[in-house]
Amino acid sequence: MNLTDPTEILATLVRCPSVTPEEGGALDALDTMLGELGFRRDRVTFQEAETPDVDNLYARLGEDGPHLMFAGHTDVVPPGPAEDWTHGPFSGEIAEGRLYGRGAVDMKGGIACFIAALARLLSENDKLPGSVSLLITGDEEGPAINGTVKLLEHAAASGERWDAALVGEPTNPNELGEMIKVGRRGSLSARLIVEGTQGHVAYPHLADNPLRALISFADALTEPPLDTGNDRFPPSNLELTSIDTGNTATNVIPASTEMRFNVRFNDLWSAESLEGELRARLEVASMALKYRSGQPPMRYQLSFQERPSPSFLTRDDRLVATLSGAVAAVTGQTPTLSTTGGTSDARFIKDYCPVVEFGLVGQTMHKVDEHVEIDDLETLTLIYKAFIENWFAATQRAG
Amino acid sequence: MNLTDPTEILATLVRCPSVTPEEGGALDALDTMLGELGFRRDRVTFQEAETPDVDNLYARLGEDGPHLMFAGHTDVVPPGPAEDWTHGPFSGEIAEGRLYGRGAVDMKGGIACFIAALARLLSENDKLPGSVSLLITGDEEGPAINGTVKLLEHAAASGERWDAALVGEPTNPNELGEMIKVGRRGSLSARLIVEGTQGHVAYPHLADNPLRALISFADALTEPPLDTGNDRFPPSNLELTSIDTGNTATNVIPASTEMRFNVRFNDLWSAESLEGELRARLEVASMALKYRSGQPPMRYQLSFQERPSPSFLTRDDRLVATLSGAVAAVTGQTPTLSTTGGTSDARFIKDYCPVVEFGLVGQTMHKVDEHVEIDDLETLTLIYKAFIENWFAATQRAG
Repeated sequence: MNLTDPTEILATLVRCPSVTPEEGGALDALDTMLGELGFRRDRVTFQEAETPDVDNLYARLGEDGPHLMFAGHTDVVPPGPAEDWTHGPFSGEIAEGRLYGRGAVDMKGGIACFIAALARLLSENDKLPGSVSLLITGDEEGPAINGTVKLLEHAAASGERWDAALVGEPTNPNELGEMIKVGRRGSLSARLIVEGTQGHVAYPHLADNPLRALISFADALTEPPLDTGNDRFPPSNLELTSIDTGNTATNVIPASTEMRFNVRFNDLWSAESLEGELRARLEVASMALKYRSGQPPMRYQLSFQERPSPSFLTRDDRLVATLSGAVAAVTGQTPTLSTTGGTSDARFIKDYCPVVEFGLVGQTMHKVDEHVEIDDLETLTLIYKAFIENWFAATQRAG
Repeated sequence: MNLTDPTEILATLVRCPSVTPEEGGALDALDTMLGELGFRRDRVTFQEAETPDVDNLYARLGEDGPHLMFAGHTDVVPPGPAEDWTHGPFSGEIAEGRLYGRGAVDMKGGIACFIAALARLLSENDKLPGSVSLLITGDEEGPAINGTVKLLEHAAASGERWDAALVGEPTNPNELGEMIKVGRRGSLSARLIVEGTQGHVAYPHLADNPLRALISFADALTEPPLDTGNDRFPPSNLELTSIDTGNTATNVIPASTEMRFNVRFNDLWSAESLEGELRARLEVASMALKYRSGQPPMRYQLSFQERPSPSFLTRDDRLVATLSGAVAAVTGQTPTLSTTGGTSDARFIKDYCPVVEFGLVGQTMHKVDEHVEIDDLETLTLIYKAFIENWFAATQRAG
């Protein structure tokens, strides 16, 4: 295989049906390629009760610093019915200048470009001016329990230390070069249970309708907005995700109801200060309800689902400038430094070293007929190669 | 059995476990008693697909007008676990001046008092100055499909015509004599489905959260109040009964959600004008949402569950005054003429003749340890006897 050609690498990876938690041959193929390039490889399977075992790969080339990590995943989301696809979801077929298949952009494509960039660098130089590692998990799209978190702990326990990391997730909304991610909002999922008093709809004064309170609580949580954002982050946003009462009787006021919501919050909040704000809003709404109804306050309980993930912002200006400069040099456009969108494994990596994210165009990810432009694969390979070269140069100049 | 004693009659009826749709021996016992008093009886079982068969009784004494109907039911709601009761739910035990058992007040007690009143009248007079009928169903607490509606149609088809009707449901909130029902609010049950666009909580601009719209719709339906009532009826009232989304993913904005609600409405509305008001409120809320969000209007559908039952008010002044006068003569207090509370079979009877409602104290109905004061049984018997005598006298004077 020609490891300087990202399309050839990607086609090989896409043909491995690595739907989480299946390895599907993808890590094996990667293992072989990195072996050809001279990497030391460490394959580790992590397990935990009630989750499937997952295979992971950590590979390093070089002994000395500075040390750059590239992080990604070979697992993909399920393709759905294969007959819905124009080209088979694991065919890696090329048509009209595009490579089709599940994982083409999210994110086997990013991995293929990084390997091709490295192969080109190694064909031009005897050795790297430092070390490069790949931290590749098979559990990013799944429960994310037997993946990046444990792989980082495992590598760090073996003495691995990193100076910077690049995550190869798709970051560009429409075209390559638009957007670098330099941080992410935090995420908090919560459940609110409101308990009233059951009764007959014809005698509402003998009951206390928890849905009436729930509407007030929902209003209080969503308005006014939590903040208007700042120059680093977009506004925090709260979305109601489910309200469930389960009362089938048309003439009965229910005894209780519940509501679930998720908040994506910026660095104006910690998980703790946000929790305080949410509780304060509920308490004010509860007091207003009590005042209006003249009834005892409605009982409610707010609890959090999962551990909230905090927001983070990458403050390594050299790292950000090096990546931004590489994108501008290759594409001719200066990328936006963004903190929008969902969470990624960068939220775990940031505890070990500064981390930035840049990859392909995300438009078709998780959709039927996921595909990548062949031209984009070449462009991203050039960007990654320039970034690696420039980061080593800038880091050594500074060091 | 001494048919002039309401307590003895009631104990016999309570001992029949006539939980809807079971006849439980209650209609048989009634049939025998009315036979002893000289009534012609007609037992009819009605059936309809997907509902249980139900036994009913129509009985008439006398050939000529004026014709007074007494309407009621012998079926009872389930007692729940018998061990929760101080006295067995079908024991008819007497303790501390009370008769205990399911149906004691709702409404075997009312039937017992009416029979005792008739027995006393017949012991004092050779014959009635007209006709009295009992229209007794076994399907008031259940689906109400094989009961009063069909029994009225059945009797009317046989040529039966009535000049007035008395329903013996418990109407007094706290003590006997407080309240006569002279009408009822209408009832309308509805289901609102709101359809948005599913998406990831981190990208709300690519989704359209139906729960955000639902909260606005709920606000618009409940505020401002539909009306403030009038001298005949209390204010109309809307209660949300259930909101159900069924989305278990914490990071997904749901595609759709539904809400159910019930309106108890007074005579300021017909079912049609109320539907128009509800649709107008939703439309205004939808337009406000569209204006605020800049997105296409949220799709929603409003549909009605069951056929709405209209409100009604009894406009037969003589009937109301005769009942009110009998209550005042026996208890010393003038009863309130009320249209509050839930629906009753009076909503069906009102299509055949003017109808009023007066019975026992409702406090323990549908509860564990349902019971009636023995003194109340005697008082209600005296009221019913006075009402029957006075109604015949007044009707004949007017006729």
